[in-house]
Amino acid sequence: MAAGLQVFGQPASTDVARVLTCLFEKNLEFELVRTDTFKKSHKLPEFIKLRDPTGQVTFKHGDKTIVDSRAICRYLCTQFPEDGNRKLYGMGALERASIEQWLQAEAQSFDAPSSELVFQLAFAPHLKDVYPDERKIEENEKKVQTMLGVYDEILSKNRFLAGDEFTLADLSHLPNSHYIINSSERGRKLFTSKKHVAKWYEAISNRDSWKQVIKMQREHPGTFE
Amino acid sequence: MAAGLQVFGQPASTDVARVLTCLFEKNLEFELVRTDTFKKSHKLPEFIKLRDPTGQVTFKHGDKTIVDSRAICRYLCTQFPEDGNRKLYGMGALERASIEQWLQAEAQSFDAPSSELVFQLAFAPHLKDVYPDERKIEENEKKVQTMLGVYDEILSKNRFLAGDEFTLADLSHLPNSHYIINSSERGRKLFTSKKHVAKWYEAISNRDSWKQVIKMQREHPGTFE
Repeated sequence: MAAGLQVFGQPASTDVARVLTCLFEKNLEFELVRTDTFKKSHKLPEFIKLRDPTGQVTFKHGDKTIVDSRAICRYLCTQFPEDGNRKLYGMGALERASIEQWLQAEAQSFDAPSSELVFQLAFAPHLKDVYPDERKIEENEKKVQTMLGVYDEILSKNRFLAGDEFTLADLSHLPNSHYIINSSERGRKLFTSKKHVAKWYEAISNRDSWKQVIKMQREHPGTFE
Repeated sequence: MAAGLQVFGQPASTDVARVLTCLFEKNLEFELVRTDTFKKSHKLPEFIKLRDPTGQVTFKHGDKTIVDSRAICRYLCTQFPEDGNRKLYGMGALERASIEQWLQAEAQSFDAPSSELVFQLAFAPHLKDVYPDERKIEENEKKVQTMLGVYDEILSKNRFLAGDEFTLADLSHLPNSHYIINSSERGRKLFTSKKHVAKWYEAISNRDSWKQVIKMQREHPGTFE
């Protein structure tokens, strides 16, 4: 490794979690730099602050800086093709094209509605003077359901989105899905009500890389435990 | 607050812990910046690394940088006299002189032997290919015992080292004492065998500020839990 890899941010952030999972899959050595703010007059119980799951991630490799979590994942896979999980971003042009298709579906159609659900279902209930917006929940629930319907169809044929290997396409769905599923029965059912999606989530959330990230999120609590 | 206060380091470090305790006592807003290195090929169980309790602390306030933990504590008390615990560094010249006497005793006579015991009793047993050195333990145990003998005498008259208030003099003893007391029966007895020292440690280790630091050390495990 010519220059060190550095990640700046909180593991509770979905973008940071996406990058950390990729780093663990690629078995790369890196530094995680996090800044916690300790406010005045915080008594013990309030001390564990609600961490913002929408928090940004910054990645540095030498003098290169990238701030988009999916761009960082792609960069890690192309820059370090031989490290760790070599199949994460595909082994050839055809495989990569299939991964890109679902990675872009996640970024363009799954991310926005699922992020809103993360906020409404997992985050808002814990915030003072913020109330879940039922209209927004329903609206985004429908969008997520539509996407998961498409996934369920694909996952009835493939083990994973882009084929029979776990790839960046699957990985990229983990951070938001995790918050939604663990937020409430309502959130959980979005995923468990679809047979193939449920099985897929069970498989991808059991990756060592992701379990490691969950562990880090627990050590730095996010919106709920 | 004109400029932000920043602490760089791991809570498991005794120097960082000393500074954090002071910041919580003074109820000051600050940022804790820590860097964790994630090495390649670390499997889940090995992941929680042994953190070095001798790790350095760096403190920044605007363009001012201080690296000695006791100097940082003094700086915080003199720079922010009206915040939080106003008695921490004394309210007048006479009080401050008494605090300084014991603060310097800690730095000059307690710190070195107790740091060696932290390493030998709390740290070495968890390190690969490092074995506790019985000769060094006995040698430093004697030095610590001598100091605690002096303290026991004082603490038979005062509740705390510099008088009847908890001050920087007491605070400064917490990080090393904590590691020694929790390392082993042998370490614990050093403190509990002296009646007034035992009572004093019970009082100072129950400060909210210190309990907060312990909590942070548990979230970022040090040499033992």
